[in-house]
Amino acid sequence: MSKAKLRVIPLGGCGEIGKNMTVFEYGSEAIILDAGIMFPMNDMHGVDYIIPDFNHLRQRTDLKIHGILFTHGHEDHIGAVRHVVEAFPDVPLYATRLTAGLIEVKLREARLGREAKINVFRAGETFRLGTFKIEAFHMCHSIPDCVGFAIDTPAGLVVHSGDYKFDNMPLDGHKPDYARLAEYGRRGVRLLMADSTNADRPGWTPSESTIEPAFDTVFKQASGRIIIATFASLISRIQLAAKMALRYNRRLAIVGPTMREYVKLAREIGYLDIPEPLLLDPAKMNDVEPHKLVIMVTGSQGEPTAVLTKLARGEQRTMDIIPGDTILLSSHPIPGNEELVYRTINKLYGRGANVVYDSLSRVHVSGHCSQEEMRLLISLTKPDYLMPVHGELRHLIQHGKLGVECGIPQSNIVIAENGTVVEVDRHHVRKGERIPGGWVFVDGSGVGDIGPAVIRDREILARDGFVVIAVTVDKKTGKPISEAEVISRGFVYVREAEELIESVKAAVYDTLKHTQSENGKRRELVEQTVGRLLYNETKRRPMVFSILSEV
Amino acid sequence: MSKAKLRVIPLGGCGEIGKNMTVFEYGSEAIILDAGIMFPMNDMHGVDYIIPDFNHLRQRTDLKIHGILFTHGHEDHIGAVRHVVEAFPDVPLYATRLTAGLIEVKLREARLGREAKINVFRAGETFRLGTFKIEAFHMCHSIPDCVGFAIDTPAGLVVHSGDYKFDNMPLDGHKPDYARLAEYGRRGVRLLMADSTNADRPGWTPSESTIEPAFDTVFKQASGRIIIATFASLISRIQLAAKMALRYNRRLAIVGPTMREYVKLAREIGYLDIPEPLLLDPAKMNDVEPHKLVIMVTGSQGEPTAVLTKLARGEQRTMDIIPGDTILLSSHPIPGNEELVYRTINKLYGRGANVVYDSLSRVHVSGHCSQEEMRLLISLTKPDYLMPVHGELRHLIQHGKLGVECGIPQSNIVIAENGTVVEVDRHHVRKGERIPGGWVFVDGSGVGDIGPAVIRDREILARDGFVVIAVTVDKKTGKPISEAEVISRGFVYVREAEELIESVKAAVYDTLKHTQSENGKRRELVEQTVGRLLYNETKRRPMVFSILSEV
Repeated sequence: MSKAKLRVIPLGGCGEIGKNMTVFEYGSEAIILDAGIMFPMNDMHGVDYIIPDFNHLRQRTDLKIHGILFTHGHEDHIGAVRHVVEAFPDVPLYATRLTAGLIEVKLREARLGREAKINVFRAGETFRLGTFKIEAFHMCHSIPDCVGFAIDTPAGLVVHSGDYKFDNMPLDGHKPDYARLAEYGRRGVRLLMADSTNADRPGWTPSESTIEPAFDTVFKQASGRIIIATFASLISRIQLAAKMALRYNRRLAIVGPTMREYVKLAREIGYLDIPEPLLLDPAKMNDVEPHKLVIMVTGSQGEPTAVLTKLARGEQRTMDIIPGDTILLSSHPIPGNEELVYRTINKLYGRGANVVYDSLSRVHVSGHCSQEEMRLLISLTKPDYLMPVHGELRHLIQHGKLGVECGIPQSNIVIAENGTVVEVDRHHVRKGERIPGGWVFVDGSGVGDIGPAVIRDREILARDGFVVIAVTVDKKTGKPISEAEVISRGFVYVREAEELIESVKAAVYDTLKHTQSENGKRRELVEQTVGRLLYNETKRRPMVFSILSEV
Repeated sequence: MSKAKLRVIPLGGCGEIGKNMTVFEYGSEAIILDAGIMFPMNDMHGVDYIIPDFNHLRQRTDLKIHGILFTHGHEDHIGAVRHVVEAFPDVPLYATRLTAGLIEVKLREARLGREAKINVFRAGETFRLGTFKIEAFHMCHSIPDCVGFAIDTPAGLVVHSGDYKFDNMPLDGHKPDYARLAEYGRRGVRLLMADSTNADRPGWTPSESTIEPAFDTVFKQASGRIIIATFASLISRIQLAAKMALRYNRRLAIVGPTMREYVKLAREIGYLDIPEPLLLDPAKMNDVEPHKLVIMVTGSQGEPTAVLTKLARGEQRTMDIIPGDTILLSSHPIPGNEELVYRTINKLYGRGANVVYDSLSRVHVSGHCSQEEMRLLISLTKPDYLMPVHGELRHLIQHGKLGVECGIPQSNIVIAENGTVVEVDRHHVRKGERIPGGWVFVDGSGVGDIGPAVIRDREILARDGFVVIAVTVDKKTGKPISEAEVISRGFVYVREAEELIESVKAAVYDTLKHTQSENGKRRELVEQTVGRLLYNETKRRPMVFSILSEV
């Protein structure tokens, strides 16, 4: 490894590239950008969430990690903070005020509150981390206090956009810092790493403030309660709900512990302007007339344990949907969640609520830039090389095409997958070695203890279940001396498949009676026989196991 | 049950209402409309497909079923034909020419080719089925020979739209029969049952012919092979591909047995115009230069066993993706399939192909009407009552709102769920009893033998797997006389969890040594102890079973 090269390593979970973590190494120095989680895809059975695989950093004892920088406070950028803090307890964290607050909440939950040192900076500030000179610049997104970074390195200036949109009418009045981006362009940007999420959307993403009219219409027309569902960390949307509640003389109740905690924090540090008398203790919701009430909940993605999902199923302990309720889903389904989201909407309708969601009315806009904004960022920063990040491969490639349209040579478009080391020096930017891994599954308290083999078994179990056959056999002759016992789940409804189970027992008895081989061989034979029998009878392939207890 | 009432019963699978089958009963007479399948939702583990639950018809020995009518040849309308023919072998089928051909293919596959009698009719024809007078009228959709039905009954005229869009420039030149719909309006429509699929889309669905320019651009720009993926039964799209291949002097190869069979049939009966020399045997693809080749495949929904999905994974036996290939996905992901579709697209990009899909270019349009067409159908037929069908509850409710906008009283909008009997007489249309069931799972060769209990078990197995513990115990004392054997799948990677397995064995030994209870009780105790231990160690809840062999 040459000392003269900057190594940029995108890391992160499943679908998206470079979304959850990026490592910058120069010689024996390193910084980390973001530490977020990804949610599992539908076929990653039983996985709670996914964290970037930063194992190679642990093994690099030569490496001095100067700090972990955060762009903003969403889960996919800060959700894995407890895991990095556990791995690198001495490395300081760097975040803006709101992001730092949200990180503190996460660390307290993980009982790591006292371990980590968070350095708070403001957009516009500059600080040095070893060989890296960091400048944070303000970017707009769907949460306040969001930044991108210009990272000055011996190999040149790298600009990382973070998640962004160019919002000229942001709800918090804090516009994008075009001047500074243009200044980077003048100074010379070696490599631009930029958000590709919406690279297949033409035009310009509408401003956060363009959803206000749709909210206003809902508030004007609703005669009963208004229930607004969104992400707990979508602070801008909570601000809008508060504004509307004030305008229409309704009280605002925040239901759900995470959203309550986030609101409390954001109000304390001045990122959420909600006058105290507007807020209503959820326990007192029944004391207020329905048309005087706005309720904010989580569950806009159909998450099984979120408030809205429980309301749809009638399983929320503290409240129920009542006919006349208007439910406003201020969100767009994340790919893979459509089925859950639409099922929730259908159930809410089934309970007599009116539901307003984004295909009916503009009650949500994306927090990510569209094509025209991507072209603008390229035109402002004029990078030598473009490395699209934050998106699936199809988005990165599309973003790369936009770069070529804007005058970057095709050979200077760097499409790297998670774990691919991108080497930057004064002459080239090119893809280097591939680091093993990419992401790690978290399931229960286990981090990385289940891998593809276990997931594959879960896949088979989910499809056809399993069958276990236990028989006691004579130690000397190997002949069965008890009837086989059959345990099965997920295969057939056993009470209605008595005949099938009887034929399994008969086949096992028969097999054991006519074989002389040793125990292991006989088990295999029993399993094959039963597997074949079950497939012939049902065209299903459950996992089959046998236990032969010798006495 | 009054003899003077028409009973309309929407049936079908999971998400959508009245999509796959509708039963019309009048006294002891009945007809069935469509017999389609639904694909399972992501959490219906291991289910191959879902058929409507028509058990109540089997039990009604008093009922004379005069016929089964089909609107068109898509899977969700004909896919369950083998199951209805098995249940009612003597009931004649009624379909247009192309639909009848596709049904015959299905019945031959199920070795029921000789059982069923299919009566072929044309759009515009009228026939009598007992008390029901049937008129078939032409509607446009994404497959030719598609009809709706006007069903004249003693309780009034019922118009069922089938799947439709009002396409004024259909590829086959066969326009919607507006005059006939208007004539029904003059005669007086008691109940309109109409397609609600796109009820949340404003405007008018673009004509099938509007995707031709996008296809043309792809053909003009592609320098290598063009691979087009769509549904096997999307005959209109296959026609367009053939037209383009002819224009750009490329040969057309159809890969995949179902699509080949459908193309053969549609050509034979004149619904697909492909000159013989245009077609290329897929076995000879390598003899043709890449830029002279169009390949049609299935797999536009990311179906795991379809050709395109296998190509993306590099597992298609007969061909591979090569850099320079252009892949055209002429489809839109069905909700729930997004993840699979986008994963397939990403993998195809990863293999060096260029991929064109509907968010990048208009290479697909919906086969279903949008809001303006729904308003038009209502205005043409002027029904007393509107019963939205074909769509999720949210679509039906939205369609109902359109009906009210068009002047139908809110009280005359009938939103029924699958299995709800809608009673129609000369005075009222209202919802009556609810018939149990709604749909039936098909898994392997089992029809209806797995239900919610098995699916729930599969859910648990998918999440956390299972653990089986087998111990031989002394019959008299109940004390263990062998070490416990542990079988586990989907829970932890056993080879890396030796310590955990050892602690399970120890806990089992300990439990059995200190208990005196009878076998069943001891099993329960072992299972509880192990379950608790595993939860404490891993925060997971695998299914735990124990087998105590007494000797």
